[in-house]
Amino acid sequence: MHIKIISLQIFFCCLYNSAAAQQSTPYIRIANITVDTTVLSEYLIFLREGIEAAIKKEPGVVSMFAVADKEYPNRITLLETYASIAAYEQHIETAHFKKYKTGTMKMVQSLALKDVTPIAFHSKTP
Amino acid sequence: MHIKIISLQIFFCCLYNSAAAQQSTPYIRIANITVDTTVLSEYLIFLREGIEAAIKKEPGVVSMFAVADKEYPNRITLLETYASIAAYEQHIETAHFKKYKTGTMKMVQSLALKDVTPIAFHSKTP
Repeated sequence: MHIKIISLQIFFCCLYNSAAAQQSTPYIRIANITVDTTVLSEYLIFLREGIEAAIKKEPGVVSMFAVADKEYPNRITLLETYASIAAYEQHIETAHFKKYKTGTMKMVQSLALKDVTPIAFHSKTP
Repeated sequence: MHIKIISLQIFFCCLYNSAAAQQSTPYIRIANITVDTTVLSEYLIFLREGIEAAIKKEPGVVSMFAVADKEYPNRITLLETYASIAAYEQHIETAHFKKYKTGTMKMVQSLALKDVTPIAFHSKTP
Protein backbone atom coordinates (compact mmCIF):
# COMPACT_ATOMS: atom_id res chain seq x y z
CA MET A 1 0.00 0.00 0.00
CA HIS A 2 1.39 3.34 -1.04
CA ILE A 3 1.12 5.81 1.80
CA LYS A 4 0.69 9.47 0.99
CA ILE A 5 1.12 11.90 3.81
CA ILE A 6 -0.96 15.03 3.69
CA SER A 7 -0.68 17.81 6.14
CA LEU A 8 -3.45 20.26 6.79
CA GLN A 9 -0.85 22.24 8.71
CA ILE A 10 0.71 23.14 5.37
CA PHE A 11 -2.68 24.40 4.29
CA PHE A 12 -2.98 26.45 7.46
CA CYS A 13 0.49 27.92 6.88
CA CYS A 14 -0.54 28.94 3.37
CA LEU A 15 -3.62 30.59 4.75
CA TYR A 16 -1.72 32.37 7.51
CA ASN A 17 0.95 33.61 5.11
CA SER A 18 -1.42 34.89 2.46
CA ALA A 19 -1.77 38.58 1.73
CA ALA A 20 -5.21 38.68 3.31
CA ALA A 21 -3.92 37.12 6.52
CA GLN A 22 -6.68 38.33 8.77
CA GLN A 23 -9.37 37.16 6.39
CA SER A 24 -7.73 33.76 5.96
CA THR A 25 -7.13 32.71 9.56
CA PRO A 26 -8.74 29.27 9.73
CA TYR A 27 -11.79 28.93 11.92
CA ILE A 28 -11.90 25.60 13.75
CA ARG A 29 -14.35 24.32 16.26
CA ILE A 30 -15.56 21.25 18.08
CA ALA A 31 -19.28 20.52 18.35
CA ASN A 32 -20.53 18.04 20.95
CA ILE A 33 -24.01 16.87 20.06
CA THR A 34 -26.35 14.57 21.98
CA VAL A 35 -29.04 13.03 19.79
CA ASP A 36 -32.38 11.46 20.75
CA THR A 37 -31.55 7.74 20.55
CA THR A 38 -34.94 6.92 19.01
CA VAL A 39 -34.08 8.91 15.85
CA LEU A 40 -30.32 8.35 15.72
CA SER A 41 -30.24 6.58 12.34
CA GLU A 42 -32.31 9.36 10.71
CA TYR A 43 -30.05 11.98 12.32
CA LEU A 44 -26.93 10.29 10.92
CA ILE A 45 -28.36 10.41 7.38
CA PHE A 46 -28.86 14.20 7.73
CA LEU A 47 -25.38 14.62 9.22
CA ARG A 48 -23.54 12.60 6.55
CA GLU A 49 -25.44 14.34 3.72
CA GLY A 50 -24.71 17.76 5.20
CA ILE A 51 -21.00 17.04 5.59
CA GLU A 52 -20.62 15.56 2.11
CA ALA A 53 -22.43 18.50 0.50
CA ALA A 54 -20.35 21.06 2.45
CA ILE A 55 -17.05 19.43 1.44
CA LYS A 56 -18.07 19.06 -2.22
CA LYS A 57 -19.77 22.42 -2.73
CA GLU A 58 -17.92 24.87 -0.46
CA PRO A 59 -14.29 25.79 -1.18
CA GLY A 60 -14.05 27.28 2.32
CA VAL A 61 -14.90 24.06 4.15
CA VAL A 62 -11.47 22.50 4.74
CA SER A 63 -12.34 19.40 6.77
CA MET A 64 -15.12 17.79 8.77
CA PHE A 65 -14.53 14.81 11.02
CA ALA A 66 -17.50 13.27 12.79
CA VAL A 67 -17.33 10.43 15.31
CA ALA A 68 -19.71 8.74 17.72
CA ASP A 69 -18.91 7.69 21.27
CA LYS A 70 -18.47 3.89 21.26
CA GLU A 71 -20.20 3.51 24.63
CA TYR A 72 -22.98 6.07 23.97
CA PRO A 73 -23.46 6.16 20.15
CA ASN A 74 -25.89 9.08 20.38
CA ARG A 75 -23.06 11.33 21.62
CA ILE A 76 -21.46 12.82 18.52
CA THR A 77 -18.25 14.85 18.23
CA LEU A 78 -17.55 17.02 15.19
CA LEU A 79 -14.20 18.65 14.42
CA GLU A 80 -14.86 21.28 11.74
CA THR A 81 -12.28 23.41 9.93
CA TYR A 82 -13.22 26.39 7.78
CA ALA A 83 -10.72 28.45 5.76
CA SER A 84 -11.86 31.59 7.61
CA ILE A 85 -14.66 32.96 9.74
CA ALA A 86 -16.16 34.33 6.51
CA ALA A 87 -16.20 30.78 5.08
CA TYR A 88 -18.10 29.63 8.17
CA GLU A 89 -20.59 32.48 7.84
CA GLN A 90 -21.18 31.47 4.20
CA HIS A 91 -21.58 27.84 5.25
CA ILE A 92 -24.49 28.51 7.59
CA GLU A 93 -26.33 30.29 4.77
CA THR A 94 -26.18 27.32 2.37
CA ALA A 95 -29.23 25.23 1.47
CA HIS A 96 -27.55 21.98 2.62
CA PHE A 97 -26.70 23.42 6.05
CA LYS A 98 -30.26 24.75 6.47
CA LYS A 99 -31.63 21.34 5.44
CA TYR A 100 -29.49 19.68 8.13
CA LYS A 101 -30.32 22.29 10.77
CA THR A 102 -34.08 22.33 10.30
CA GLY A 103 -34.29 18.59 9.63
CA THR A 104 -32.47 17.67 12.86
CA MET A 105 -33.74 20.43 15.16
CA LYS A 106 -36.08 18.14 17.08
CA MET A 107 -33.58 15.26 17.12
CA VAL A 108 -30.80 17.15 18.93
CA GLN A 109 -31.06 17.08 22.73
CA SER A 110 -27.97 19.19 23.39
CA LEU A 111 -25.33 21.08 21.42
CA ALA A 112 -22.09 22.48 22.87
CA LEU A 113 -19.74 24.48 20.64
CA LYS A 114 -16.10 25.24 21.39
CA ASP A 115 -13.69 27.31 19.28
CA VAL A 116 -10.22 25.79 19.04
CA THR A 117 -6.81 26.53 17.51
CA PRO A 118 -4.74 23.97 15.56
CA ILE A 119 -1.67 22.31 17.14
CA ALA A 120 -1.02 19.55 14.58
CA PHE A 121 -3.18 18.14 11.75
CA HIS A 122 -1.69 15.11 10.02
CA SER A 123 -3.26 12.27 8.08
CA LYS A 124 -2.43 9.60 5.54
CA THR A 125 -4.44 8.19 2.65
CA PRO A 126 -3.80 4.86 0.90
CA MET B 1 -6.39 26.92 -6.02
CA HIS B 2 -6.89 23.35 -7.07
CA ILE B 3 -8.94 21.52 -4.47
CA LYS B 4 -8.37 17.80 -3.97
CA ILE B 5 -10.86 15.96 -1.88
CA ILE B 6 -9.59 13.06 0.16
CA SER B 7 -11.77 10.81 2.14
CA LEU B 8 -10.53 8.79 5.06
CA GLN B 9 -13.88 7.00 4.89
CA ILE B 10 -12.64 5.32 1.71
CA PHE B 11 -9.62 4.15 3.67
CA PHE B 12 -11.87 2.81 6.42
CA CYS B 13 -14.01 0.97 3.84
CA CYS B 14 -10.89 -0.65 2.40
CA LEU B 15 -9.84 -1.73 5.85
CA TYR B 16 -13.29 -3.08 6.70
CA ASN B 17 -13.53 -5.01 3.43
CA SER B 18 -10.12 -6.60 3.61
CA ALA B 19 -9.66 -10.31 4.14
CA ALA B 20 -8.38 -9.73 7.65
CA ALA B 21 -11.46 -7.67 8.56
CA GLN B 22 -11.25 -8.16 12.30
CA GLN B 23 -7.57 -7.23 12.40
CA SER B 24 -8.12 -4.15 10.24
CA THR B 25 -11.03 -2.47 11.99
CA PRO B 26 -9.76 1.05 12.62
CA TYR B 27 -9.24 2.08 16.21
CA ILE B 28 -10.21 5.70 16.84
CA ARG B 29 -10.24 7.66 20.03
CA ILE B 30 -10.46 11.12 21.50
CA ALA B 31 -8.06 12.20 24.23
CA ASN B 32 -8.88 15.24 26.36
CA ILE B 33 -5.77 16.51 28.08
CA THR B 34 -5.35 19.33 30.59
CA VAL B 35 -1.80 20.65 30.78
CA ASP B 36 -0.09 22.65 33.55
CA THR B 37 -0.20 26.18 32.08
CA THR B 38 3.30 26.98 33.38
CA VAL B 39 4.83 24.34 31.05
CA LEU B 40 2.42 24.53 28.12
CA SER B 41 4.97 25.58 25.49
CA GLU B 42 7.33 22.72 26.47
CA TYR B 43 4.39 20.29 26.41
CA LEU B 44 3.42 21.39 22.88
CA ILE B 45 6.96 20.69 21.61
CA PHE B 46 6.72 17.12 22.94
CA LEU B 47 3.23 16.69 21.48
CA ARG B 48 4.08 17.98 18.00
CA GLU B 49 7.28 15.90 17.84
CA GLY B 50 5.41 12.79 18.96
CA ILE B 51 2.64 13.24 16.39
CA GLU B 52 5.05 13.97 13.53
CA ALA B 53 7.20 10.94 14.35
CA ALA B 54 4.15 8.65 14.63
CA ILE B 55 2.77 9.75 11.25
CA LYS B 56 6.16 9.48 9.52
CA LYS B 57 7.39 6.23 11.06
CA GLU B 58 4.27 4.14 11.71
CA PRO B 59 2.23 2.80 8.76
CA GLY B 60 -0.59 1.98 11.20
CA VAL B 61 -1.06 5.57 12.39
CA VAL B 62 -3.71 6.92 9.98
CA SER B 63 -4.31 10.41 11.35
CA MET B 64 -3.72 12.63 14.36
CA PHE B 65 -5.50 15.93 14.83
CA ALA B 66 -4.61 18.03 17.86
CA VAL B 67 -6.32 21.29 18.83
CA ALA B 68 -6.30 23.62 21.83
CA ASP B 69 -9.34 25.27 23.37
CA LYS B 70 -9.31 28.94 22.31
CA GLU B 71 -10.53 30.13 25.71
CA TYR B 72 -8.36 27.75 27.79
CA PRO B 73 -5.29 26.95 25.63
CA ASN B 74 -4.05 24.35 28.14
CA ARG B 75 -7.06 22.15 27.33
CA ILE B 76 -6.05 19.94 24.42
CA THR B 77 -8.19 17.63 22.30
CA LEU B 78 -6.66 14.85 20.21
CA LEU B 79 -8.52 12.82 17.59
CA GLU B 80 -6.35 9.78 16.82
CA THR B 81 -6.99 7.12 14.16
CA TYR B 82 -5.04 3.86 14.02
CA ALA B 83 -5.47 1.24 11.27
CA SER B 84 -6.29 -1.36 13.93
CA ILE B 85 -6.05 -2.03 17.63
CA ALA B 86 -2.79 -3.88 16.86
CA ALA B 87 -1.41 -0.70 15.27
CA TYR B 88 -2.27 1.19 18.45
CA GLU B 89 -0.56 -1.44 20.60
CA GLN B 90 2.55 -1.12 18.43
CA HIS B 91 2.37 2.68 18.70
CA ILE B 92 2.62 2.73 22.49
CA GLU B 93 5.76 0.60 22.31
CA THR B 94 7.66 3.03 20.04
CA ALA B 95 10.56 5.14 21.23
CA HIS B 96 8.87 8.39 20.14
CA PHE B 97 5.68 7.59 22.09
CA LYS B 98 7.67 6.68 25.19
CA LYS B 99 9.66 9.92 24.86
CA TYR B 100 6.38 11.89 24.74
CA LYS B 101 4.81 9.92 27.59
CA THR B 102 7.71 10.12 30.03
CA GLY B 103 8.66 13.67 28.99
CA THR B 104 5.17 15.05 29.62
CA MET B 105 4.12 12.92 32.60
CA LYS B 106 4.53 15.73 35.12
CA MET B 107 3.05 18.34 32.76
CA VAL B 108 -0.33 16.60 32.33
CA GLN B 109 -2.91 17.45 35.00
CA SER B 110 -5.68 15.25 33.61
CA LEU B 111 -6.21 12.78 30.76
CA ALA B 112 -9.60 11.42 29.65
CA LEU B 113 -9.75 8.83 26.86
CA LYS B 114 -12.85 7.91 24.87
CA ASP B 115 -13.14 5.26 22.13
CA VAL B 116 -15.21 6.41 19.15
CA THR B 117 -16.49 5.09 15.81
CA PRO B 118 -16.28 7.04 12.53
CA ILE B 119 -19.36 8.69 11.01
CA ALA B 120 -17.71 10.84 8.31
CA PHE B 121 -14.08 11.86 7.73
CA HIS B 122 -13.60 14.34 4.90
CA SER B 123 -10.87 16.86 4.20
CA LYS B 124 -9.37 18.89 1.39
CA THR B 125 -5.80 19.85 0.62
CA PRO B 126 -4.78 22.76 -1.62
